[in-house]
Amino acid sequence: MEQLYVIKIGGNIVDDETKLALFLNAFAAIDEKKILVHGGGKLATKMAAQLNVPQQMVEGRRITDAETLKIVTMVYAGLINKNIVAQLQAADCDAVGLSGADGNAIKAHKRVVKELDYGFAGDVDEVNAGFLHALLQQNLSPVLAPITHNGKGQLLNTNADTIAQETAKALSKFYDVSLLYSFEKSGVLLDAEDENTVIPVITKETYKDLKEKSLVFAGMIPKLDNAFAALDSGVRKVIIGKADNLQHLLNGEAGTSIINEQ
Amino acid sequence: MEQLYVIKIGGNIVDDETKLALFLNAFAAIDEKKILVHGGGKLATKMAAQLNVPQQMVEGRRITDAETLKIVTMVYAGLINKNIVAQLQAADCDAVGLSGADGNAIKAHKRVVKELDYGFAGDVDEVNAGFLHALLQQNLSPVLAPITHNGKGQLLNTNADTIAQETAKALSKFYDVSLLYSFEKSGVLLDAEDENTVIPVITKETYKDLKEKSLVFAGMIPKLDNAFAALDSGVRKVIIGKADNLQHLLNGEAGTSIINEQ
Repeated sequence: MEQLYVIKIGGNIVDDETKLALFLNAFAAIDEKKILVHGGGKLATKMAAQLNVPQQMVEGRRITDAETLKIVTMVYAGLINKNIVAQLQAADCDAVGLSGADGNAIKAHKRVVKELDYGFAGDVDEVNAGFLHALLQQNLSPVLAPITHNGKGQLLNTNADTIAQETAKALSKFYDVSLLYSFEKSGVLLDAEDENTVIPVITKETYKDLKEKSLVFAGMIPKLDNAFAALDSGVRKVIIGKADNLQHLLNGEAGTSIINEQ
Repeated sequence: MEQLYVIKIGGNIVDDETKLALFLNAFAAIDEKKILVHGGGKLATKMAAQLNVPQQMVEGRRITDAETLKIVTMVYAGLINKNIVAQLQAADCDAVGLSGADGNAIKAHKRVVKELDYGFAGDVDEVNAGFLHALLQQNLSPVLAPITHNGKGQLLNTNADTIAQETAKALSKFYDVSLLYSFEKSGVLLDAEDENTVIPVITKETYKDLKEKSLVFAGMIPKLDNAFAALDSGVRKVIIGKADNLQHLLNGEAGTSIINEQ
């Protein structure tokens, strides 16, 4: 099968003009098929402050009331997405920016209210792999903003990590997919304080071992559990690391590769 | 050749939730291939006021400084475009929202400064007919926001009427194109004060005659000149009228049809 990279960048890159420009040039230089998923960064929070829309964050997630939904739609699907696409086009990468509503790319439902009402937050139901596949076959590179829709006219604010993961899973039926999460650290570290302790490869077996010996930082466990879930759904490899050196991450010279077995 | 409708809606529809919903349902019901081009409406002006970014309008055109470009990118390509797409998807129309940067759909250059510096305003150089054609062939309906790019990473604010016209012209090599401008009046009127005086058909010959007899309202002349220029570039028909009854406009029961000859 043909190779596909699904690459997620977070706020630390989106917010930094120089880092973003370097990353986008490296992304444009990838010869294989590729999809970029971007988070929101601090711009939405800044815009909300300027517009006097109070923001409430719970465990790093934004409570999305109607006014906040307008802001994230403007900032993520408008300002950030279109500037990324224009920069990729300038670097000869034929990018096409999409929200989940466009081409019905990603359908979601409003998160069910349990202890907490997240408002217009969406949990992904289905990625339209056929649509994205058709774009990729035209040598287009989709750039996904973290906004989805419910198919009934409602836009929803959706976690970019989840979008990246669900997209990687759905496209595994057409491609040999590597899912890359850009991260503030150099990879999964044995010692959270020491960037030189990157674990280059984690398999299901070594993960079990690392967990038993309590060698994995607690905060990494949900991320790694998600990575193995993606592998179980057909994704070939999950890579976690600093996007500053994208080519090294992709060829395994940097970061942590998470694979089912060696 | 297959029929294609390029339909431009202006601020009077975009700003009115009820009118917009009615229009989008009618648009979704069109069986033929279709492209929607939307203007900006008053939302950008409102947003600029909330963000304390002073706006300068000259002859109905917005002077686009760097801060204003951010606002129109957010509002046109983000908020308005994605809400239109989500509503079309809900009406079973497989819409995909695009700026000119997406898929390099519309390339423009920054307007040359003469008496007046329009800032980041773009004049269209080229519409990527091949890209839009490929989407149409996948039964997708492109929804174009009035934001273009220069191919060097710069987004540009661009007149929606011009985008509609250039898109219609470029796609004439693949389709039998009708270009529809939604308008605040019922069509081209013989008496600007009387909505019952719509001229149903204007040809080059009758246009000459109407102008000689000073029967065309001066404000309409540039619009009509543009319409005939579009016909000279391969567009089959230009329709001007109220979008409230879209089906009647499309089948010639309402509005003014501008054609080369009867």
